[in-house]
Amino acid sequence: MRFFSDNAAPVHPRVLEAMAAANALDTAYDGDALSRQLDGRFSDLFERDVRALWVPSGTAANCLGLAAICPPYGGVVCHRDAHIQNDECGAPEFYTHGAKLMLADGDGAKMTPDTVRTVLDAIANDVHRVQPHAISITNATEYGRVYRPDEVAAIGELARSRGLRLHMDGARFANAVAHAGCSPADITWRAGVEVLSFGFIKNGGMSAEMLVFFDPDLVGATPQRRKRAGLLFSKGRFLAAQVLAMLDGDLWLDNARAANAGATLLAGGAGDRLIHPVEANEVFLRATPDEAAALRARGFDFYDWAAGEIRLVTSWDQTPDAIRPLADAIAAL
Amino acid sequence: MRFFSDNAAPVHPRVLEAMAAANALDTAYDGDALSRQLDGRFSDLFERDVRALWVPSGTAANCLGLAAICPPYGGVVCHRDAHIQNDECGAPEFYTHGAKLMLADGDGAKMTPDTVRTVLDAIANDVHRVQPHAISITNATEYGRVYRPDEVAAIGELARSRGLRLHMDGARFANAVAHAGCSPADITWRAGVEVLSFGFIKNGGMSAEMLVFFDPDLVGATPQRRKRAGLLFSKGRFLAAQVLAMLDGDLWLDNARAANAGATLLAGGAGDRLIHPVEANEVFLRATPDEAAALRARGFDFYDWAAGEIRLVTSWDQTPDAIRPLADAIAAL
Amino acid sequence: MRFFSDNAAPVHPRVLEAMAAANALDTAYDGDALSRQLDGRFSDLFERDVRALWVPSGTAANCLGLAAICPPYGGVVCHRDAHIQNDECGAPEFYTHGAKLMLADGDGAKMTPDTVRTVLDAIANDVHRVQPHAISITNATEYGRVYRPDEVAAIGELARSRGLRLHMDGARFANAVAHAGCSPADITWRAGVEVLSFGFIKNGGMSAEMLVFFDPDLVGATPQRRKRAGLLFSKGRFLAAQVLAMLDGDLWLDNARAANAGATLLAGGAGDRLIHPVEANEVFLRATPDEAAALRARGFDFYDWAAGEIRLVTSWDQTPDAIRPLADAIAAL
Amino acid sequence: MRFFSDNAAPVHPRVLEAMAAANALDTAYDGDALSRQLDGRFSDLFERDVRALWVPSGTAANCLGLAAICPPYGGVVCHRDAHIQNDECGAPEFYTHGAKLMLADGDGAKMTPDTVRTVLDAIANDVHRVQPHAISITNATEYGRVYRPDEVAAIGELARSRGLRLHMDGARFANAVAHAGCSPADITWRAGVEVLSFGFIKNGGMSAEMLVFFDPDLVGATPQRRKRAGLLFSKGRFLAAQVLAMLDGDLWLDNARAANAGATLLAGGAGDRLIHPVEANEVFLRATPDEAAALRARGFDFYDWAAGEIRLVTSWDQTPDAIRPLADAIAAL
Repeated sequence: MRFFSDNAAPVHPRVLEAMAAANALDTAYDGDALSRQLDGRFSDLFERDVRALWVPSGTAANCLGLAAICPPYGGVVCHRDAHIQNDECGAPEFYTHGAKLMLADGDGAKMTPDTVRTVLDAIANDVHRVQPHAISITNATEYGRVYRPDEVAAIGELARSRGLRLHMDGARFANAVAHAGCSPADITWRAGVEVLSFGFIKNGGMSAEMLVFFDPDLVGATPQRRKRAGLLFSKGRFLAAQVLAMLDGDLWLDNARAANAGATLLAGGAGDRLIHPVEANEVFLRATPDEAAALRARGFDFYDWAAGEIRLVTSWDQTPDAIRPLADAIAAL
Repeated sequence: MRFFSDNAAPVHPRVLEAMAAANALDTAYDGDALSRQLDGRFSDLFERDVRALWVPSGTAANCLGLAAICPPYGGVVCHRDAHIQNDECGAPEFYTHGAKLMLADGDGAKMTPDTVRTVLDAIANDVHRVQPHAISITNATEYGRVYRPDEVAAIGELARSRGLRLHMDGARFANAVAHAGCSPADITWRAGVEVLSFGFIKNGGMSAEMLVFFDPDLVGATPQRRKRAGLLFSKGRFLAAQVLAMLDGDLWLDNARAANAGATLLAGGAGDRLIHPVEANEVFLRATPDEAAALRARGFDFYDWAAGEIRLVTSWDQTPDAIRPLADAIAAL
Repeated sequence: MRFFSDNAAPVHPRVLEAMAAANALDTAYDGDALSRQLDGRFSDLFERDVRALWVPSGTAANCLGLAAICPPYGGVVCHRDAHIQNDECGAPEFYTHGAKLMLADGDGAKMTPDTVRTVLDAIANDVHRVQPHAISITNATEYGRVYRPDEVAAIGELARSRGLRLHMDGARFANAVAHAGCSPADITWRAGVEVLSFGFIKNGGMSAEMLVFFDPDLVGATPQRRKRAGLLFSKGRFLAAQVLAMLDGDLWLDNARAANAGATLLAGGAGDRLIHPVEANEVFLRATPDEAAALRARGFDFYDWAAGEIRLVTSWDQTPDAIRPLADAIAAL
Repeated sequence: MRFFSDNAAPVHPRVLEAMAAANALDTAYDGDALSRQLDGRFSDLFERDVRALWVPSGTAANCLGLAAICPPYGGVVCHRDAHIQNDECGAPEFYTHGAKLMLADGDGAKMTPDTVRTVLDAIANDVHRVQPHAISITNATEYGRVYRPDEVAAIGELARSRGLRLHMDGARFANAVAHAGCSPADITWRAGVEVLSFGFIKNGGMSAEMLVFFDPDLVGATPQRRKRAGLLFSKGRFLAAQVLAMLDGDLWLDNARAANAGATLLAGGAGDRLIHPVEANEVFLRATPDEAAALRARGFDFYDWAAGEIRLVTSWDQTPDAIRPLADAIAAL
């Protein structure tokens, strides 16, 4: 059974249905009736006027977002375990034309104002050093930790005081909101976030994420950059349809709650095998190679992480009944 | 009725069905069973071993292809009306890191060995001038003209003699093959084409094109570049599914034949309004603003082109019965 | 004798002396006493507050200037024979991260408002087309023609009306000013020029050009880009010294007048061999291969240009006595 | 007195003389008689056929070198205190079009095979991670430490075993060779170095460094990249003249020995204030702000480094008599 990534989870049936329905429209690019709803729908969700563009992958969302707030000669502070640093084959450098990622520390891939400040304070302010222009935080993090609104706000305040823009990689934004139990606004712009990569693909979508600019002016040349990267799909209505279906009836939140609950269930019997508190839909455990092999022998599929560590990821489609056998197997190790 | 672009045509039902079926798979990126069939299926189609990668847009296919054959300090000869020059917001320059497009002439957006040679011969071979590294031809062209295999081969021979790579932008490759009545091999690698952007989106697909390298070694770092551009979708199986559905039973050819037939029908009564011979699924007509307005008043939707010119594009889904009213209206102008 | 390029002319003795004198200073980069005079000295010269940065080559000056006014997804209108298009191996694309040059026509490599407008008006204003952001004119042009202040102003007015920035490639700016007999201000910012590459190397300098921003705010990140390109020399005082020596006593104008006079002398007996009016220090002549060979046999060194054409360039160091033998030889052909 | 950087030291009189003499030549770019000697002269020095190109700054040398061995989607392992990481405003990212620097540890800014291996072994070999393509070491390092030939060779062997190219930033190469007392060949290509930035500017030159390719084929498109960056100076003879003057009579070694001796003299009375062994021309000392102020009050100019640390750099032109007062002052603190 699939616990290696929510990346590979199925698409929610309501999303597929919405895509099929969108076939009847016949306007190209983002001129269709669905795409034109996005600004409004996300403005409603976030309780302020935003600009919201579909993009077809999380990497694209992150990197178009960073390109909007960091010039080629600038830097972006992020955690050293961030997806943009380790898992995008240099996409931030490609999209920004060579900006430098500046790596901060923090437990569970969470930065704090202190760890960010350590990076910033080591940078002499002269023309020889790449100067920081932005901070990027990931919520939920690569280790399934969640920044609560006050934690985001603390970094937001630091960003503002240093004249830096704040981006949030929300590939698992829904899981973070579901865990925090707050409004989407509280954990983003009210806490200082200016650009959000809002993920749907891991959460029941197929190929659509949203890039949200809380200050509409910040969108700048993002439409041009999106086109220039080959991301302005001619049949964009099928991306808009996915996202709108996820918003309808808060499917995005329901799916995230289900995935989070699955991880909590898994972690239940893990005891001190647990490496990180489980706050979203990822569980990191200590497990010997033999133990990992034993789990795999029973049909559970997951990633080896560092030596003696495994990663289990739950998805929106996995019911408690489907997860319980793995939870039991972990408890019984 | 939609005659403004095949870009906005519906997705073929068999494609949608194949996508729905792909939902049952659960492997990420291009590791799934469908994506892994692509090299083999396209090798069969082209009668030689090829490497075939899905990409989600024609711009992405073109520009990843060009990046594989032209370095940042090189140039690509293309027609001055080529899509890569005029309709991709500088994507070739973005993906190649600044290569220069070198613009050639030719009727109907078709270059000839002579018009390419005129460009090449004007370039002094020294370190001050950007040197050409590749030629890119579009088949069918922006004006719905088709390069026959012998015409491609003439440019292929020129490319080889000058040490240049040859790329074909086949956003409407199916329409070209359908018109030429040749094998896909004859009009590509047997004629010297080394990299092909093979379009499906305008022809009944949703969001998948194929980038085909006829010499598998030429693929080089394209997988890295695809990832780096945010184009390695985690749910890539839905792209592979589209393409495989289009190959099954030669749906790609049937669709193209239908679209081409529609254009031929439209052109039938156009007489000397016709600006270019109709060989694919586009019809360019002389029409005064009043005439254009009269057609629009009857519900036909199309683009104004240059002053006094209109462009009509037919699609796979438009039956003769659906097209005939416009054909009649044109004849009656 | 050297008539192939002013590129290779000797350095003026006063420049060499100034460089030797600069050796006594010992501050790095552009913090030295000479570099710090530049803003002031060029503000005086141009009769307004400017920002003036040394750069070590004309290509660097042009491309840092363009990068300041054109984003990666933008375009720069220039003449199709411009140096930035033909002689810089794609440096504009490198420095701007892929902006597109948009080529205009015009006799003698001079654009006019009409020829620029033809380019601009063909560009649909949508996200698919690279949009123009700037115009770059070369004064004196590649063919030794000079834009007079009113001609610059006409293009400046067009630029302003279209929201475009205006750059002047002044690799031979001194020759243009000498010919026009105007003030440097009249032919630049008073005529709408916002960024100037002010050349000294062809005119008696060794390795220093100036990049002048008439609106100090436009300098933007140019200091960072200069550093990032490896152009912020640690011993920058030797660049500043060159330029200041050229300004002292208007050496730059004297040198240009001498070079221009040489070209006028050469052209005197050329009659209808002359291809372009001689306004700066270049002479383009019709000459058969035999005639060219005859001149070379007498020790005159120059470039073949197009078929049946030769280019002769005079330099600041060539006296009338030194030039007269070639003038006579041409007249006697 | 200047101890803040060798960057600002005077140009050696023999270099100035050679530049003045080069004024008599009149060939442009690198076609002159001096530039054409460089391959041969450096082949002699390094005891094998090399390709040697002048470039006008150390940053340019490093980054053109890296661009020759690392593609845009690749990575370069370097020390976290390396000049390319901290002092070039992102020039490596600019020249390579976005390659990523991968930071290794090591005392005194010296990496070891172990610290490099730690970086390499943490990189999963898949398309999501930027893959390393090269290692760059600095000799002498930012802290004045020298890699001996066997230490270079150990890293060279690691590079070879992992399929990585090896670059040496030799901004202070002369100081390293002078300290190691070895041949230039032993500390470079015989130890696995493939590309060398050979510095002259800090060592008595004005504006010329050499980029040396030990495998002539590796030079690749470096001439095009040099031009494209605005670094192919039209009066390149003045760069070649500088370098040749430095080679004549081993001036480069004499100068480096003098600078190294100065640092050794300074360190003589420093006792346990010394932070790093003194092997080249840099001395890092512990000193309180009061102590630093006291030294400055006596006219000695230097950089504050980290808190409680100062950096003193000696230059080729500083005689023992000139240095002794500072040495005494340090000893007397």
